[in-house]
Amino acid sequence: MSSERLIYLPLGGAGEIGMNAYVYGYGKPGKERLILVDLGVTFPDMDSSPGVDLIFPDIQWLQDRRERLDGIFITHAHEDHVGAVAHYYERLGAPIHARAFTANIARRKMEEHGHPEKAVRTAGAWPETVTAGPFTVGFVPISHSIPESSGLAIDTPAGRVVHSGDFKIDTDPGVGEPFDEALWREVAAPGITAMICDSTNVFNTHEGRSESSLAPAIEGLVSAAKGMVVATTFASNVARVKTLAEAGQRAGRSVCLMGRAMRRMIEAAVQTGVLKEFPKTVNPENAKEIPRESLMLIVTGSQGERRAASAQLAQGKFQGITMKEGDSFLFSSKTIPGNERGVIKIINQFSELGVDVIDDSSERYHVSGHANRPDLIRLHNLMKPGVVVPMHGEHRHLREHVKLANDNGLRGALAVNGTMLDLGAEKPGVVEYVETGRTYLDGSVQVGALDGIVRDRIRMALNGHVTVNVILDEEDDPLGEPWCEIKGLAETGRSRAPLVEVLEEDLSQFMGRAGAKILADDDKLEEGLRRVARQSALNEIGKKPETTIIISRMSG
Amino acid sequence: MSSERLIYLPLGGAGEIGMNAYVYGYGKPGKERLILVDLGVTFPDMDSSPGVDLIFPDIQWLQDRRERLDGIFITHAHEDHVGAVAHYYERLGAPIHARAFTANIARRKMEEHGHPEKAVRTAGAWPETVTAGPFTVGFVPISHSIPESSGLAIDTPAGRVVHSGDFKIDTDPGVGEPFDEALWREVAAPGITAMICDSTNVFNTHEGRSESSLAPAIEGLVSAAKGMVVATTFASNVARVKTLAEAGQRAGRSVCLMGRAMRRMIEAAVQTGVLKEFPKTVNPENAKEIPRESLMLIVTGSQGERRAASAQLAQGKFQGITMKEGDSFLFSSKTIPGNERGVIKIINQFSELGVDVIDDSSERYHVSGHANRPDLIRLHNLMKPGVVVPMHGEHRHLREHVKLANDNGLRGALAVNGTMLDLGAEKPGVVEYVETGRTYLDGSVQVGALDGIVRDRIRMALNGHVTVNVILDEEDDPLGEPWCEIKGLAETGRSRAPLVEVLEEDLSQFMGRAGAKILADDDKLEEGLRRVARQSALNEIGKKPETTIIISRMSG
Repeated sequence: MSSERLIYLPLGGAGEIGMNAYVYGYGKPGKERLILVDLGVTFPDMDSSPGVDLIFPDIQWLQDRRERLDGIFITHAHEDHVGAVAHYYERLGAPIHARAFTANIARRKMEEHGHPEKAVRTAGAWPETVTAGPFTVGFVPISHSIPESSGLAIDTPAGRVVHSGDFKIDTDPGVGEPFDEALWREVAAPGITAMICDSTNVFNTHEGRSESSLAPAIEGLVSAAKGMVVATTFASNVARVKTLAEAGQRAGRSVCLMGRAMRRMIEAAVQTGVLKEFPKTVNPENAKEIPRESLMLIVTGSQGERRAASAQLAQGKFQGITMKEGDSFLFSSKTIPGNERGVIKIINQFSELGVDVIDDSSERYHVSGHANRPDLIRLHNLMKPGVVVPMHGEHRHLREHVKLANDNGLRGALAVNGTMLDLGAEKPGVVEYVETGRTYLDGSVQVGALDGIVRDRIRMALNGHVTVNVILDEEDDPLGEPWCEIKGLAETGRSRAPLVEVLEEDLSQFMGRAGAKILADDDKLEEGLRRVARQSALNEIGKKPETTIIISRMSG
Repeated sequence: MSSERLIYLPLGGAGEIGMNAYVYGYGKPGKERLILVDLGVTFPDMDSSPGVDLIFPDIQWLQDRRERLDGIFITHAHEDHVGAVAHYYERLGAPIHARAFTANIARRKMEEHGHPEKAVRTAGAWPETVTAGPFTVGFVPISHSIPESSGLAIDTPAGRVVHSGDFKIDTDPGVGEPFDEALWREVAAPGITAMICDSTNVFNTHEGRSESSLAPAIEGLVSAAKGMVVATTFASNVARVKTLAEAGQRAGRSVCLMGRAMRRMIEAAVQTGVLKEFPKTVNPENAKEIPRESLMLIVTGSQGERRAASAQLAQGKFQGITMKEGDSFLFSSKTIPGNERGVIKIINQFSELGVDVIDDSSERYHVSGHANRPDLIRLHNLMKPGVVVPMHGEHRHLREHVKLANDNGLRGALAVNGTMLDLGAEKPGVVEYVETGRTYLDGSVQVGALDGIVRDRIRMALNGHVTVNVILDEEDDPLGEPWCEIKGLAETGRSRAPLVEVLEEDLSQFMGRAGAKILADDDKLEEGLRRVARQSALNEIGKKPETTIIISRMSG
């Protein structure tokens, strides 16, 4: 036995859906050469991360070993796979490999951040490969919901590992490469040590449906519509955008793409040759002049995002275009769990305008980009790996996927973020636990999720805030009375007097009672003022607010 | 024609699902005698109402006319129908009428608030009636997901109005009265002026399913389980709780009810004779001693509520009971839109414990309490009202329900909260718009939704908070330097110096530049300090924080 080992370590994406970042390593323990597969983001929400702009995986472990990092491989251009490449470029520094379309998107991000675009290298599809340290990596085309998605065939001295990437089995995806069973059989031929595999739809027992199956329903809908037709979908689903645009064209409508992400994605697809034919479009300026019954808009904002085109149209107007009674709005998308409130709000706003909304409940106008259970089994059988390691899923998905592999006669290993597996071992198991977590982009600054910053914001949102101000002279005697300001708290409570006055009265009494020892000690005085302010508010309005205590001491 | 009119005015529940409150009136315009049907609450969320405890309809309009209010009628004991009776008792003062089970729940609320329980009067079922001013109101049993739900037959000099209440058509509901077509035919016989009708499931095109259809699947699941079985459902769904308990009993398990709401509801059902047979239960103290394979818990928290039994069990322990590998957890409930994040969190926590979770995706273990589209049509046809006025729905539901009525040859009228209709008119239309809204219970205080309190909290959650403190002497000269404290903001930014120091430096420069005019004017000085603090933070960390500016002026 050699003393080298083949390790797998998810830093993000295993135990959650989002911010994918998977490390592979080969070498002597603690000296492995490393590669990183994907470097994505996840999106904040009001419940757990108010005010945050983006969420990244904490890559400190990898940064501490950056001299051993031989390359970053991006499977496809979804934000949860490519979104952090530019933000982390300086901290990791390794070359970034991706196929043409994905590289195009990655370079746009690099450029926006003032990083060198040439750090992103375009890779050809399998059988071409990229060598990075002891790894030889091939981008094997696999169908998903964005062009040029790839699984990775990662050859190592300990055998071949397959990283499925996000995938579905679709033999007619409209745009891009169909799933090619023969190709994957060829990849599997030498034997697969381990397969790290997408788990998103493991609970869905239905047969997967092809992207192309949607066209008739979409065409039927658009051709039957009377007023303006507006459709939204994920901007990156180029095949869907094309299907929608073609449906518009066939119905004799001018097609207009609205929203920055939508235009960017189509532009990238055209630039990289992924999209060869696309109906002629008009720009929003010209679209305004076209009679509504001859117009079709394809817009961003399928998840109810506040600033996107869909939300703006629902509120009345976007780029000079308004919707009204008799128009139709199609969600050619599903609502990602957690986004329901935003989407439902838009639907109700359209309802108030008299717009007919066709949502995703019929499943006729959207298919998922991920493999359902039967297709997972199909890939398991095709690859017959030594071990299946589920990724791209919450804990429930990973656990179910291990069970699925076991039921199918394969070994499975559950590894959440921070779990390092030895993939090459006879019985692949955990060799180490690594500290992982989340980093927030907050304004222009990166902060740790556990730094307490967001926790303080949540507390202010739940409890409101009181500022208490006291001034003492050089003998530690109070100069005047304590003074309060409130924010996010009821102005009057139980006693019907202004809350601020009640607080000031109670704080004033406390100052009167406090002895010289307390008045002379900033910490003790602050603690006392905080306790009194919170208790006084609790009595008066039933809430214990967050506090900022300002103690000023005047010197002669 | 008489100059009297019959009005309908929703103050809550029309244009939303929650906080139902519907006013009916009869008399000369502006002098109508009034009744109120239902007085419910809705629940806050972090996105729009952080820190709020409960949400009520704004009843100011009704309070201003309380001397004309002859009674409050509660259709059933769900919180969105009965939840505000105690909170608003003093502001409305009218007698509250409900059937025995609903009255039992309402009295518990009155008692908790120290209000007289006798204000709640128990009404018999139709053909018994209650007279309130010009109205004669009958509680007509109708099937729903809680015992003794009733539609109301409201007789007025302008004819009979039917208020459906929340309903489904279930001829075998397990506990309580089956839907009785003959009874409703009898109600319809004299002719129905208007029907105000539940709209919740108008988009669901499937046949409704009976509560009793679930028993075999639930029994199969429980009898096949190996470890402990825990099931959650809505505590108020007494029939479901009974079905679950019976499944446990048949599988030879001891049954334990956990969570206050669960025990309260069963207690109320037993006290009022609604529940005649219920399996013997053990208390949590004894349950701990029972082998897990012989135990079944029925618990609160199906919506992922943080403090309920389900969430506590998922976090490790509740009342001495822990779950572990091999146990099963059943959601015999659906996730209400907006609650997905909380529910998914619990499912993942159970997954980490090795507990098998059976969620609502298969639809085998839960049925809705509301009428689907075919059953709505059935009630329309049974009642053949002069006009259908949809209620209990968001705008999209109300609009669709009007269309459904129209397609079925009936007149429909869309009236959201604040829209007063004249139901007796030849063509029922809008006669007035009334200002409505929401009132928050925040701690122990009621505040208006538009008072700005919650808005300030949301802003602090999104932007963080800075306190700026300056002290000036009696000549308006600054005493020392400005002083800052931050909350919910990154401690360092672009320049790598502490944010507080950067802010203080910029504020200090501002004070130095500010002329005597600004220094002497609190408003101008505050405005300047605020502007500088926000701009300085924006430069440094990319965020514009909320601010509290404290200016202290020392006098001799």
